[in-house]
Amino acid sequence: MSSQPPVIDMNRLRRLLDGVNAFGINETTGGHNRIGYSDADMAARDWLAGEMKADGLAVSRDGVANLFGRFGPAEGPCVMAGSHLDTVPEGGAFDGSLGVCVALECVRAMKDAGVTPKTAVTVVATAEEEGRFGGMLGSQAIAGTVTRDWIDTASDADGIRLVDAMAAQRLDAHKALDAAWLPGAIEAFLELHIEQGPVLERSKIPLGIVTAISGVCFLQVRFTGVANHSGTTPMEMRADAFAGLASVAAGIPALIERFGTEESRVTIGKVDVQPNFAHTIPGVAEFSVILRDTSGEVMRALRDAVVADVEAAATAHGLVHEIVEKSWLAPVALDAGLQEMLMGEADKLGLDFLSMPSGAGHDAQTMQSLAPSGLIFIASRAGISHAPAEWSDGADIEKGAQLMLNALLRLVG
Amino acid sequence: MSSQPPVIDMNRLRRLLDGVNAFGINETTGGHNRIGYSDADMAARDWLAGEMKADGLAVSRDGVANLFGRFGPAEGPCVMAGSHLDTVPEGGAFDGSLGVCVALECVRAMKDAGVTPKTAVTVVATAEEEGRFGGMLGSQAIAGTVTRDWIDTASDADGIRLVDAMAAQRLDAHKALDAAWLPGAIEAFLELHIEQGPVLERSKIPLGIVTAISGVCFLQVRFTGVANHSGTTPMEMRADAFAGLASVAAGIPALIERFGTEESRVTIGKVDVQPNFAHTIPGVAEFSVILRDTSGEVMRALRDAVVADVEAAATAHGLVHEIVEKSWLAPVALDAGLQEMLMGEADKLGLDFLSMPSGAGHDAQTMQSLAPSGLIFIASRAGISHAPAEWSDGADIEKGAQLMLNALLRLVG
Repeated sequence: MSSQPPVIDMNRLRRLLDGVNAFGINETTGGHNRIGYSDADMAARDWLAGEMKADGLAVSRDGVANLFGRFGPAEGPCVMAGSHLDTVPEGGAFDGSLGVCVALECVRAMKDAGVTPKTAVTVVATAEEEGRFGGMLGSQAIAGTVTRDWIDTASDADGIRLVDAMAAQRLDAHKALDAAWLPGAIEAFLELHIEQGPVLERSKIPLGIVTAISGVCFLQVRFTGVANHSGTTPMEMRADAFAGLASVAAGIPALIERFGTEESRVTIGKVDVQPNFAHTIPGVAEFSVILRDTSGEVMRALRDAVVADVEAAATAHGLVHEIVEKSWLAPVALDAGLQEMLMGEADKLGLDFLSMPSGAGHDAQTMQSLAPSGLIFIASRAGISHAPAEWSDGADIEKGAQLMLNALLRLVG
Repeated sequence: MSSQPPVIDMNRLRRLLDGVNAFGINETTGGHNRIGYSDADMAARDWLAGEMKADGLAVSRDGVANLFGRFGPAEGPCVMAGSHLDTVPEGGAFDGSLGVCVALECVRAMKDAGVTPKTAVTVVATAEEEGRFGGMLGSQAIAGTVTRDWIDTASDADGIRLVDAMAAQRLDAHKALDAAWLPGAIEAFLELHIEQGPVLERSKIPLGIVTAISGVCFLQVRFTGVANHSGTTPMEMRADAFAGLASVAAGIPALIERFGTEESRVTIGKVDVQPNFAHTIPGVAEFSVILRDTSGEVMRALRDAVVADVEAAATAHGLVHEIVEKSWLAPVALDAGLQEMLMGEADKLGLDFLSMPSGAGHDAQTMQSLAPSGLIFIASRAGISHAPAEWSDGADIEKGAQLMLNALLRLVG
């Protein structure tokens, strides 16, 4: 072991990130397109596997194209570090890929410093975290939470089935059922990810240590009224589906005030009105309501309140309503011990951090069901993510990466 | 002159209406498609011109494809009766076409009864009333209210210019400027039209005699906020464009309560949210606000109140707003004398009617600027119009047509 403690090499990390991001780049928009199980996604994995091999890691893949690079003892449990390599369509350069590259850079820094870990470090690039098929298939396969039913029925927004998308990459989706790691095989999981929100930047703090990940409830609501002429139909004879939606939407602040917390988020993001003509009273209004909170109890209260508001609006406006709960992801508290350890290491490095929940979902929440898991956030400029303008400053990344490195050293001795 | 008073022949009227509606029918949906200056619209005019000629009428067309059939003295002023022959896409079988067919049936009934009118009756099938190009070109050309500027710039929702659409039918749009009738050339204009609303049916009254036609103000509003992740952006850091729209929309009932009348109608019919993803806070919300009232003063008060609400919502939600007043059509009071006469004739026939305003626009409102104009409404089943399900009962049509016939006889002696 060298006398110099391992340090992050930012130039090497940047080159690695650039190497990953050469796959799926749209030169016109600057957007990144490594959609789960796309050719670009698979090609990036092949390239990264080559990098890992050149670093002397023991490289393997499982049935869902999770990529692993093991450093240290060939046998026994490991500490796993990484994130996902897939992107949303026209995504940014940091979401997922930064966490993968930082994990590999940590191993490279250990090697440079002559570290021989007692416990292996396994770098992971998970597959299909962005939910093209409605889940986080890569980490769910590792954690053993994928079901045969889901595999058989999952499809993307274009109706392409998971089994077909994977078969096109010569993958058998049912192998997801054989990809689970045994309890104890992973001693801890650490992920570094960009915040994708504005909280750290507005607080002028570079790093976040995540306490919990909000649950998500997706309600799909449809109001059906009567499409009629906007001039000939008196106000009191209308069944205006959009008026029903407007009253539900306008009631959201009061609903959070009454049933929510500071961590509550209620969003109407997708709205479709029919027939959507200026001179016609809307006959149908269909919309999404996404509810989030770090407490399952609060989420249930918010959901029940939205349902009550929808029913009240239907009655008030003479509408038929349908509410479908499309998904419910429970909130996840991350491992308290790892949070303590990360905070201690940050203190030792003299790094300013915020202990904070995550409003977005991450592989760490899935992994927590299998192994103690921790998550480090890097500030996102203007809170922008899932867009070409996504950006995190090099200085912040360096701090987060060094924290990850020191935390791994602490865990693998 | 025969001793029998002229009467409407419902079978003949039905055949005529069926003849018109054979043009542009969509056999799958039952929708009628005689869009202004479409081939089907022009073919229906040719066919109707043939019917008029066979009836011995003096047939003519003007530069915008208004079709006239004159019965009675070749010289001197006339009484004009009719409506429009064009339809909206997938429209109903009665909107416009019924009024044209009833006018021709009235002339046929006069002929059958041997009536020789002192003043000519001119049956008219106006062109482009449905506003494909944003106006009521046919009646506006007759009334002399079309401008060269408008002709040069008018285009439809697909960006097709009026001049090009008319040129494709071998029409020169600028001939609209030569189509105006001289003041006095039309002694009176009478139109029969379906109500297109639910008021008569709910009142169980077959006929309406229209007092005034509501004005229409079209406001186009755009809120611009910031599209962000619905999980990572706390409620108080959002600039949610749809939340701004929802607060404006939810405020409409209070706005009418404060500034409106029983005749006020405020409608948000077209809503476009961007990026329109369930998990993303809307960065842009664009929407139409259509305001109507029979009083110009009330319309101005409503418009100012909507503008104030938009400004308040922009401030409250941190949004940039744009409001464009796309059009302003002033309300029109129809001729009081003709209303009296129509009511008197209805009384003589023992017909139940409602004296009522029209929330929709009609050729009669344009014609009123040139000549005293009157408008008879026929009840619409369930208030449905601009759709294949549009329907009016034969018994109601017969009553309205007979009222039109008796009113014409009264006017032309």
